[in-house]
Amino acid sequence: MTNQHSSDQHRSPVTVIGLGPMGVALAESLLNHGHAVTIWNRTAQKGDDLITKGAHRAATVAEAVSRSPVTIVCLKDYATMHAILNSVVDAMTGRALVNLNSGTPTEAHAAARWTAEHDVDYLDGAIMVPPPLIGEADSVFLYSGSQDVFDRHRATLASLGDPRHLGSDPGLAVLHNAALLDLMYATMNGFLHATALVGSAGVPAVDFGELAVKWFMPTVVNESLIEQASELDQGDYPGDFGTMEMNANALEHITRTSVEQGVHSDQPRLMQQIAERAIAEGYSGRNYLAVFEIFKKPTHTG
Amino acid sequence: MTNQHSSDQHRSPVTVIGLGPMGVALAESLLNHGHAVTIWNRTAQKGDDLITKGAHRAATVAEAVSRSPVTIVCLKDYATMHAILNSVVDAMTGRALVNLNSGTPTEAHAAARWTAEHDVDYLDGAIMVPPPLIGEADSVFLYSGSQDVFDRHRATLASLGDPRHLGSDPGLAVLHNAALLDLMYATMNGFLHATALVGSAGVPAVDFGELAVKWFMPTVVNESLIEQASELDQGDYPGDFGTMEMNANALEHITRTSVEQGVHSDQPRLMQQIAERAIAEGYSGRNYLAVFEIFKKPTHTG
Repeated sequence: MTNQHSSDQHRSPVTVIGLGPMGVALAESLLNHGHAVTIWNRTAQKGDDLITKGAHRAATVAEAVSRSPVTIVCLKDYATMHAILNSVVDAMTGRALVNLNSGTPTEAHAAARWTAEHDVDYLDGAIMVPPPLIGEADSVFLYSGSQDVFDRHRATLASLGDPRHLGSDPGLAVLHNAALLDLMYATMNGFLHATALVGSAGVPAVDFGELAVKWFMPTVVNESLIEQASELDQGDYPGDFGTMEMNANALEHITRTSVEQGVHSDQPRLMQQIAERAIAEGYSGRNYLAVFEIFKKPTHTG
Repeated sequence: MTNQHSSDQHRSPVTVIGLGPMGVALAESLLNHGHAVTIWNRTAQKGDDLITKGAHRAATVAEAVSRSPVTIVCLKDYATMHAILNSVVDAMTGRALVNLNSGTPTEAHAAARWTAEHDVDYLDGAIMVPPPLIGEADSVFLYSGSQDVFDRHRATLASLGDPRHLGSDPGLAVLHNAALLDLMYATMNGFLHATALVGSAGVPAVDFGELAVKWFMPTVVNESLIEQASELDQGDYPGDFGTMEMNANALEHITRTSVEQGVHSDQPRLMQQIAERAIAEGYSGRNYLAVFEIFKKPTHTG
């Protein structure tokens, strides 16, 4: 026996429910790390490859959740999870359920209450990498819920990637997932719109990409942004080095340039309107970070 | 004489018109690099500090532009530049005008035509750093217009920062300026909105900033983005690793989470609508970069 196999004796058995591309990657990674893996999927044949790699296929959901102290679900949404698990929840009493569906904090809170009523340990999680990167030591998984449950199953979760615990509020994982994707989409949309803008004058996307990635973005996203974040926590927006008024003018200018160049203009126009709203609410002489005050409130209507 | 002073003999005299915070920083940097500097501003006393540092104050705009082979203007906008220079343009014949106002490509093109009619060499430029960083060797200035004019004055421009020539189309500098600021605002808005989203559950901005800056953003903005840019140039959006449909769902989800959490929801909603527009135009099975096809066209109305 190799060292790896001898350490495998301490690996917890795990059940994986939901065998889409992500669920298959999770089960494979657990098998690779020496866990006994039980699988179940509504359409059974989806797990055929996993069976040849040593997974056990449970005949029923009840059997699946009974075979392991930990069940990991990776389904389309919370509603699908409830449809599959509601009738077998009592078979999970004293065991742990790790939910990697995406959803909203409200749905995560409801799932946490439901499991608590049945004495099922619960962790809510979000996978921050695509299926091919599952199992890499630096592939981040965000978790929230009981610190104790997280600590007890940390070794098992580490067979999937780098598990990070965000806090005991079970909604934090899906909320961070939404926030980080929000940031990703905004950045990508900014890059794509900016590329369309220079493209209107015949500049190749690759040339603009070189400029944006190698020079410009490191001037925007760096550790000084963390220092700026402390201004957000303090609600303090000193306008000494630039005011909302100046930024609204720049945004008006970007919107006008987009119209002139015949490219889409809704995205800069919305940013301009948000800056103008900040001015209307009294942040004219404060710095640009004060749009945070607008973002913290529901969308203004009327 | 020091080495610096002996090399100063080869520095071109420069005239600087417009003495806002940026114009003052430009003139100071030129003085520090050993140029003879002539200044002019509508409100003369703005240059008092520069005079004590050795600048010459011209009594009239005509005198100002006559004293140097190169005039740098840094004014509020193109209209202000024309109001000041139109009557003295013939005094600039055979000399160079470097315009660092911000504006649109259309305005840059008009300024290039106007100077060409009067045999004035013209460069249009954009300053990509704030006043305190003017004069640093790595402070980027973007220029466009005649390569020949750029090459002849490169040494002078290097006294202000790192001069980069984008091409002979005079509109390229202001267009790149608008595009890069567009990218900056989109990224900052993404960060601020995402921070508001996690802030709705009590997460401090600094904690989210750490996660976003040190871990997440480097997974989004890196050299693979340049590779993706080549897909944009090819108009090729293979959906093998994710489709527009999946991304529109994720954006719907982020919008809904924003509403649930009581934060502003217009920004994710607009991104969702743009993804849905891409689906409506037939990119449902293509990857997310296909929103580029939407951005390349004017905003759809109706």
